[in-house]
Amino acid sequence: MVRLALRLEYDGAAYGGSQRQRTAPSVQAALEEAIERLTGERVRTAFAGRTDAGVHALGQVAAFESEAAHAPDVWQRALNAHLPEDIAVQAVAFVAAGFDPRRHALARTYRYRVWNTPVRAPVRRRDAWWVRGPLDARRMHEAATGLIGEHDFAAFGGSPGPGRSTWRRMMQAVVCQQGPLVTLELVGNAFLPHQVRRTAGALVEIGLGRLAVERFTGWLARPEPGAAGPAAPPHGLCLIRVEYPEPLFPDDRQEED
Amino acid sequence: MVRLALRLEYDGAAYGGSQRQRTAPSVQAALEEAIERLTGERVRTAFAGRTDAGVHALGQVAAFESEAAHAPDVWQRALNAHLPEDIAVQAVAFVAAGFDPRRHALARTYRYRVWNTPVRAPVRRRDAWWVRGPLDARRMHEAATGLIGEHDFAAFGGSPGPGRSTWRRMMQAVVCQQGPLVTLELVGNAFLPHQVRRTAGALVEIGLGRLAVERFTGWLARPEPGAAGPAAPPHGLCLIRVEYPEPLFPDDRQEED
Repeated sequence: MVRLALRLEYDGAAYGGSQRQRTAPSVQAALEEAIERLTGERVRTAFAGRTDAGVHALGQVAAFESEAAHAPDVWQRALNAHLPEDIAVQAVAFVAAGFDPRRHALARTYRYRVWNTPVRAPVRRRDAWWVRGPLDARRMHEAATGLIGEHDFAAFGGSPGPGRSTWRRMMQAVVCQQGPLVTLELVGNAFLPHQVRRTAGALVEIGLGRLAVERFTGWLARPEPGAAGPAAPPHGLCLIRVEYPEPLFPDDRQEED
Repeated sequence: MVRLALRLEYDGAAYGGSQRQRTAPSVQAALEEAIERLTGERVRTAFAGRTDAGVHALGQVAAFESEAAHAPDVWQRALNAHLPEDIAVQAVAFVAAGFDPRRHALARTYRYRVWNTPVRAPVRRRDAWWVRGPLDARRMHEAATGLIGEHDFAAFGGSPGPGRSTWRRMMQAVVCQQGPLVTLELVGNAFLPHQVRRTAGALVEIGLGRLAVERFTGWLARPEPGAAGPAAPPHGLCLIRVEYPEPLFPDDRQEED
């Protein structure tokens, strides 16, 4: 019996989310089917982070156990041959028996993309949220940096479950602009449900001049659940990278596009 | 009666090409339907360049005549409200009665994208050709620069029609690499059918070490039709820009992504 970790890239458009569910296809179900077709084993995969319906990933991490005796590169090629075109295994490694991709992760990097033009852009409609009004990206960046540190993020995210803490540590928060593309990148130890999309939604309100930076950062001091308002749409969001105490994969650098 | 020019962006995946055809949806038909729904007029639109099935555009130019008395910004908003989500009008201008977007164009810029990684990349599967073997982009660039100038491009393209010249002028030819993304950009006065995709296909053969640069540039001196071999797939190709003696649109800069 070996335990394997995979680095997964996927286009989330066709899925109800990363996690297996009754009413919609999921990345987890697609991966487990590919493993079963390859090995005959019905395994249960564990994921580093739960991504919502329509959210993409360049560096999701999944782990599972198997009796099959393949080398990592054979696992990778064979799984990719069985996976649909919108999911691919980008790296494979053997990990310790107790490895838990969610609990052992030290940091997650998420990217949220906004396409800021007066007219909708067909070629960007799948990977960026189109915002028509002109955004003040500098003010958005100023507000985002206020999130850095250890805070109660209850105002920015859904409940993690009864009795569970809503404190998280944000290590990096950057908004940058390249032409019409405004990108938010957040690195945190962990995130509450919908936290990145609700943060993106509130930052866009700031960029449009409809929300004050002070009000935004004030939600860290007075964490009323739901205060940050509605979430930005899922197709602008991508889970870029998950980090562990030791690099998991031989080439532990996810090239970004 | 006014004559209008439009700058069009589209995702070509769902279309049999830019040009109206019997057996598949086309960008032209979608545009003419949007105009008809808006004005009640059945117009015939003229396009600057013919793009094949699956090819995208950021800066296609189309022109047509209308009796409707709308200002350019009203035309733009109203057409975008009637067009499908994979086509958008990015600019509108009134032009002279005799304006012909194809014949009056001085230059076209095409971009061909290759995604060069050992493993397929789901999030780039729609806008770049995945090439698995490592590419020597510098050698590809060296070969591409050999295309600059006035040449008989018969070896690189399909026939433009009986009795029509296969000579074209190439003003710019660049291959650049940013991480796994290898981009070919060609600027020419005009292009033969499939010329950019066949050039991209041959350049990838060079990048893989399967074709010599001398052989490639030799096809300009001995233009045997079809010598350059098969075309690269359409989804990597995008018509970026069409240039005219005078700028057509108020903001005649197409932002690229």
